[in-house]
Parts: sequence; C-alpha cells; structure tokens
Amino acid sequence: MSIKITFLGTAGAIPTPQRNLPAVAMQRGNELFLFDCGEAVQRQMTLAKTPFHKPMRIFITHMHGDHVLGLPGLLQTMALMDRQKTVQVYGPVGIVEFLRCLQESLQFALTYRLEVYEVADAGVVCEEAEYRVLAVKSNHVVTSFSYAFVEKPRAGKFIPEKAHVLGVPLGAAWGKLQHGETLTLPDGTVVKPEDVSGPIRKGWKVVYTGDTRPFPEFAKFAAGADLVIHECTFDDALVDKAVVDGHSVPSQAAQDAKDANVKDLVLTHISARYTDAALLVEQAKKVFANVRVAEDFLKIDLPLGE
Amino acid sequence: MSIKITFLGTAGAIPTPQRNLPAVAMQRGNELFLFDCGEAVQRQMTLAKTPFHKPMRIFITHMHGDHVLGLPGLLQTMALMDRQKTVQVYGPVGIVEFLRCLQESLQFALTYRLEVYEVADAGVVCEEAEYRVLAVKSNHVVTSFSYAFVEKPRAGKFIPEKAHVLGVPLGAAWGKLQHGETLTLPDGTVVKPEDVSGPIRKGWKVVYTGDTRPFPEFAKFAAGADLVIHECTFDDALVDKAVVDGHSVPSQAAQDAKDANVKDLVLTHISARYTDAALLVEQAKKVFANVRVAEDFLKIDLPLGE
Repeated sequence: MSIKITFLGTAGAIPTPQRNLPAVAMQRGNELFLFDCGEAVQRQMTLAKTPFHKPMRIFITHMHGDHVLGLPGLLQTMALMDRQKTVQVYGPVGIVEFLRCLQESLQFALTYRLEVYEVADAGVVCEEAEYRVLAVKSNHVVTSFSYAFVEKPRAGKFIPEKAHVLGVPLGAAWGKLQHGETLTLPDGTVVKPEDVSGPIRKGWKVVYTGDTRPFPEFAKFAAGADLVIHECTFDDALVDKAVVDGHSVPSQAAQDAKDANVKDLVLTHISARYTDAALLVEQAKKVFANVRVAEDFLKIDLPLGE
Repeated sequence: MSIKITFLGTAGAIPTPQRNLPAVAMQRGNELFLFDCGEAVQRQMTLAKTPFHKPMRIFITHMHGDHVLGLPGLLQTMALMDRQKTVQVYGPVGIVEFLRCLQESLQFALTYRLEVYEVADAGVVCEEAEYRVLAVKSNHVVTSFSYAFVEKPRAGKFIPEKAHVLGVPLGAAWGKLQHGETLTLPDGTVVKPEDVSGPIRKGWKVVYTGDTRPFPEFAKFAAGADLVIHECTFDDALVDKAVVDGHSVPSQAAQDAKDANVKDLVLTHISARYTDAALLVEQAKKVFANVRVAEDFLKIDLPLGE
C-alpha cells in the first residue's frame, strides 16, 4: 500500500527554532503510525495536518524525555477531541508506569481505549494481515529499540493472457483467482492464483533506529529496507562524544545503510549545534550515496507499486 | 524595576498553529519568572530569546497537562545546558510527586538544585527584598491558584532642593540619605530620607489568573494591579460551558478587572475555536476598556517609573 512519511521533529535532545523534538508520522491507508513522541508532537501534527482520528499505533524507542514527553499531551488532546478509536502504544519496560503516574498526577480521563504494550526483547511487536512491526534492541545509554515496519508480500499482478491460455472463462472465475482462490475448471484442470499472476510483489520496509550507537544486529534487521531513518546526532569529528552519549555519526549511519543494502537513508536527531546540516550529508555520502538529512515537515511518499 | 513580559503560549487546552500551550515569561532585572509551563515552553523560550540561565522561579497554577507538561522538558534541557543556578518551582500539592515520577521514569539527572514547593493555601508564596509573590485559591475544576507578583514600594525620588533647604551638605551625606540612612547634621538637626524625598514609589503589580471561573476573592487579590493576565477560554455565548469546564468568558474577565480597579487587562488561554479573537475583545470592552487578547510572543514592557 502507499505510505506517506512526515518528519514531525528532527532535533536531538534540545529543540531549536528549526527543529522540534523527535517524532515521525507514517500514514498507510487508514492507519497512522508514530515513531517517538517528542514534546509538542501534537502541535507538529496540527501544523503538518496529520490526522488525529485514525486508528493509531505509537512506537517509543526509549524512555528519554525528548522522545516521549509529547505522548501524554497527545493522548489528552485526543480525549478532548472525543476520540473513540483505540490507541496502541508500544515502548520499553517503564512506559506503563510513566503513563500511569502521569494520568494520576494530571487527572486526565480518556474517551477511548488505550493499550500499552511493553517491549522487553527483540521480535515481532505487532502483526496484522498486511504488515508486521519488529523491534530489535539497539545500543543507547538506556534500554532502546529500533523498529522496522514491514509490509507482507502481495500476490503478483493478475495476467489475463495466462488465464486465457489456461482456459479460465472470463467473469467470476477471474475474480476468484485474483482474490487468492484455487479453481478447478470443468475439464478438471486445477488453476492456482500463481499460475495466472506475475511475481510476488514485495511490500515496503521502513526502519526507524531511535537513538543508538551502531550495533551488529542492525544489518540483518534492516536488510533490504526501502528507507532507513537513522539517528545522526553528531558529525564524524565528534565520534568519541557520540560513543559516550550513545549516538551515531554520519559515516556510521551510512555504513549501517550500506551493510544492510538499503535503498534510501535519511538522517535525523540532529544536534542543535548544526544549523547547517550539509556537513553531515557530505560525511555520509563518502560511504553511502542515497542519503539526506531530514528537516521538520519533510514528507516522503512510498507509492503503491505495480 | 522594569519588567518585560512575554507570552510564550496563549492557547486553551489544545494548541493551534497560532497558539502554543499556556506559559508566560516575566523578566525582572536578572531574574526570570515563568507562570505555567505548557508543552513546548522550552522551544517557545528559544524562539522568543527568553534566557535559560538566569535565576528562575516557576509558578504552576494547577496540575493539568496543558499547564505543566512543558516543565520536565525545560528542567531537562537546562541540565543539558549545564545550568548551575537553583530553580524554584511552586505549584499545587501533587507537583512534587509529578516531578518525582517523571525523574524516575525518564532517568534524568539535574546539574543544578531544584527546589519544589507545594502551595497548599492562599498567602505569600515567596518573598524577597524587592518583591513578593502571593497566591490565592481560584475556582477551576481541580485545585488551582492565581498568582500576584507584587513589587514592594520604593523610597521616593531624592529631591536635592529639600536637602539644600535643610542644610544637608553636598557629597557623601546625600548618598547616605538616598540609601535610606537617617543623618544627624553638625547642628543637631535630624534628617530622615523621607524629609528629602518625593512620595513613596509604588512598584508593579502583575496578576496571572490561570484557569478559573470568576471567584469573589479576586477583586481584593488583584486590587490596583497594573496588569491582569486573565484566562478567557470561551466567549460570552458559551458562558454555560465555561461554568461547567471551570473557565471564564470576556464579560467576566472584564468585570473582574473593573472590580479590582486594574490598569490593563490581557486575555489569554483562548480556545482553539477562535481563529480570530476580535469577538472576545469586543465583548470585554463593553465592561472594561483597557483590554486586549494576547497572542504568542506578545511582549509587554512595564518600564521603571520615575
């Protein structure tokens, strides 16, 4: 399905006039996915015209304020908007207590069901008919996860010529094959959907790292992704600081993208010290060509393939 | 002393593209005072060039998310900036637990001393040589306070002619009188500072209501204020809703200002439904002339008087 990604915040730990705190919105069909909820995510959504009323799943990478302090306000605002649809929140152990104590302190009632799932280890975080979201433990200064949104493959494109050659009569039978049914023709011939279709169509794969140093499991986790949204807090000259603070620099993010053989790399979580991000792109490009630095409200469309 | 007020957020419970969540900054000399800390107050401070490093006192009116969810991020960012100066926070009972559980959930360490004072009842909240801050219980749907920042009166202006007539010799003696000392002249005449000064100079009085319905103690509490920053969530037609939700409408805010005999009234905490606030001003003006509606980044200067 086509996917629209909007960067709602691209700053590191401190917001700047140009960059709000980390959050990425992803719209797919009627569903909204949020990756991290930095402070003011609700206002950024309003500014970006991101819908508040859709089915919504929120994935928090780690329990640092700059990644999660926008969550309570967003939940509260959706209640003021009289939201009825359930919201699912996924995050590290501790997120349940975080929301519990805030609800107690701030006495806010929700108008909708809130399901909060604590992610304790790598694996499938949620799975639906058309997609799954996976998590892997990343390598920050606190427990932190990277997430991969992975569409399941779709059946190949129906090829009328093949159906014709096999003697499938025009009409209802075509529709059945297109919907995955196997048919037995009057002459006893068995026709499977794959007999009348092109190759299986791969879905989109989008990976969001959250805050992390490079870590060895990443290449497999992100393998073949169409888009990797990778944190890149500092430039290469500050790699020692990045190691201490649990962050990545451009050459590392680019190496990750190269090792995972991904299509596109977007750097985000940019330290306030970089008013011009050209340096980061320049350093990353030496390792991986298809790279850019996100800015607030950058939109990336992944269209529905053939 | 001169005072500079900056409206950092003027929205009601839900931020809009034009209005961030409630917060007002007040600079006085080397000190910064914040009244409420809606989400993203730290970014609004950056945009308004409000200093982060000054001695700072923060006053929270009530424990609703839209008034307090910017506080943890601000405290955290000041630690990342390596702030050393103490911060004082004043708010209703519950604010200690709110900050405790956030510090535990988000594991942030501060680089400075944080003093959190729970305001349980009306009275003087803090007192310094040149000013005091008072609180009064307002009338919202949860425990809520209005705050008054009140400068103490300053001695009258020194009048050289009077000193001359009384025979005070030019030089050090003048300085002593100007600094509040009583002198005995060589001929035995006792000269007090008030003998050589104009009338006592009144300091500034600024009142911030926070969320509230009109309440009877307000007129006395705000009496004679130079500036009242009054919540005004809805317009007069929605007075019934305002009563239910614990808010005020323009005619009520204006009546409050009139009853308290204040100089200027600024309305804030404007519901997202009003993209044009002209209606609110119009309704208030029928009762009280010196009124306007705040917008984000509105600055009001109260200059040092004669």
